[in-house]
Amino acid sequence: MTFEKIAILGPGLLGGSIALAFRERAPETRIALWARREAAIAELRERRIADLASTDLEAVAKDADAVIFCVPIGIMPALADRIAPVVPRRALITDVGSVKAPVARALAPIFDDRARFIGSHPMAGSEQAGLSAARADLFQNAVCILTPEASTDASATADARELWVRLGCRVLTLSPQEHDEAVALVSHLPHLVAAALVNTARAANPVALELCGSGFRDTTRIAAGPPAMWAEILRENRGPLKDSVNAMIEKLRAMVTLLDSGDTSAMEQSLAEAKTERDRLKNFPQK
Amino acid sequence: MTFEKIAILGPGLLGGSIALAFRERAPETRIALWARREAAIAELRERRIADLASTDLEAVAKDADAVIFCVPIGIMPALADRIAPVVPRRALITDVGSVKAPVARALAPIFDDRARFIGSHPMAGSEQAGLSAARADLFQNAVCILTPEASTDASATADARELWVRLGCRVLTLSPQEHDEAVALVSHLPHLVAAALVNTARAANPVALELCGSGFRDTTRIAAGPPAMWAEILRENRGPLKDSVNAMIEKLRAMVTLLDSGDTSAMEQSLAEAKTERDRLKNFPQK
Repeated sequence: MTFEKIAILGPGLLGGSIALAFRERAPETRIALWARREAAIAELRERRIADLASTDLEAVAKDADAVIFCVPIGIMPALADRIAPVVPRRALITDVGSVKAPVARALAPIFDDRARFIGSHPMAGSEQAGLSAARADLFQNAVCILTPEASTDASATADARELWVRLGCRVLTLSPQEHDEAVALVSHLPHLVAAALVNTARAANPVALELCGSGFRDTTRIAAGPPAMWAEILRENRGPLKDSVNAMIEKLRAMVTLLDSGDTSAMEQSLAEAKTERDRLKNFPQK
Repeated sequence: MTFEKIAILGPGLLGGSIALAFRERAPETRIALWARREAAIAELRERRIADLASTDLEAVAKDADAVIFCVPIGIMPALADRIAPVVPRRALITDVGSVKAPVARALAPIFDDRARFIGSHPMAGSEQAGLSAARADLFQNAVCILTPEASTDASATADARELWVRLGCRVLTLSPQEHDEAVALVSHLPHLVAAALVNTARAANPVALELCGSGFRDTTRIAAGPPAMWAEILRENRGPLKDSVNAMIEKLRAMVTLLDSGDTSAMEQSLAEAKTERDRLKNFPQK
């Protein structure tokens, strides 16, 4: 489809990067960007990131071929209620939320018969947040998961795929529930583990942290992510996430048992299985 | 002190990198490198990494101003027994083992009255292993921990410090026990956690791994390290490590409780504490 006008709601890392990526890869597309704060509008204008940068939500969304929600999940429904009456019926509506079942439950009914909604999750982020960290190449080689449901318009899936491919993503499709279970394991669990690892070291021996090498730094990098945003993501996906954390606790317990037993060959086997799987990740396009 | 001849025992990532770093930073020093396998000797000669590359342990160690053990911890005592009679009394003897109390217990008595032993732990590594991964800048800005004991010759501490500073390290001093407790937290626990995270995801949902982004990749990078080497390290430090793993399990349990309670502000607080501490690491020279 032709994206003559894209409306991006939210000027953070993802919203800003989508604008920059469109600028670079589809310069004919007009970018309208909504932000709540005037200071953000000023920065958007100064950096010439959008054709229209405004706090006027309806003006940004009106006439858009696609609207992308790049705000915290909890804020999406209120914005959706306001734009649903003004967007064209043909408009593709999507979001970049990290949890998909709650977003689908909230947004799909609002846009039913008023536009074409499908959830998206571009798995590109950074421990840095905000417009200042936005980059045109953020989505290059990233996985983007689309989460159509039975009620999703097939053309919405196709058009959302085209949108993310244009930004550089490798696109996969899962149901919202499958998505949430998968990201609980490969995104939300690692975040919680990284934070727990830092907090464990700090509580046990703050001086030890001054000795850390690249291993600790890499393992805990994502613990520097924005706490409020992550607390919301973890809460929204708490069902699948709790299962994942409990499974992780069981694995750690099994490793304590191996340490107790002194069975080095069983420990080596466990580490070797992890290495095989981790090495296999190199076969996938790296982000 | 003047290092006219350095003997490096073991041609792996660390031994090879020490040789390369000396070549670059102290080209007047003669490098003798011992390897067990002829194939390694051939590679060392081809890459001109050492002035002498040999399987003859005594020839490598003889006349050395410093001997650096860069072999697995379990092999060190047998090599030490063989070189103790041939090294000069003035020789500085050290090692790069990742666990220090067991090494000190094994090696210090062997060199007592025959040379000057002190343990070292340059905290520079990689998930890659072997001579092919060796780099002259591996130690640049890395922390190196020296682990003198009450019985350690003060000149050995000073000379070991000089050696590691020459290779680019920032040198700290801890007792072997303090060292082992600290690295249990910031090195061995992260390794075990990274492996457990990969194994948890694989067991629960192998397909989920194909969706992973940079967060999962960074958090699990060290799980690709050599399993046999790490199984030995984890076993040698199992006492402090078990305490660390159990503390980590408690932190994860506490986070499950927070998820259950739906108390987002307490979760945000926990993530914010981790972020503050993780951000603080940026103040230390990065390796």
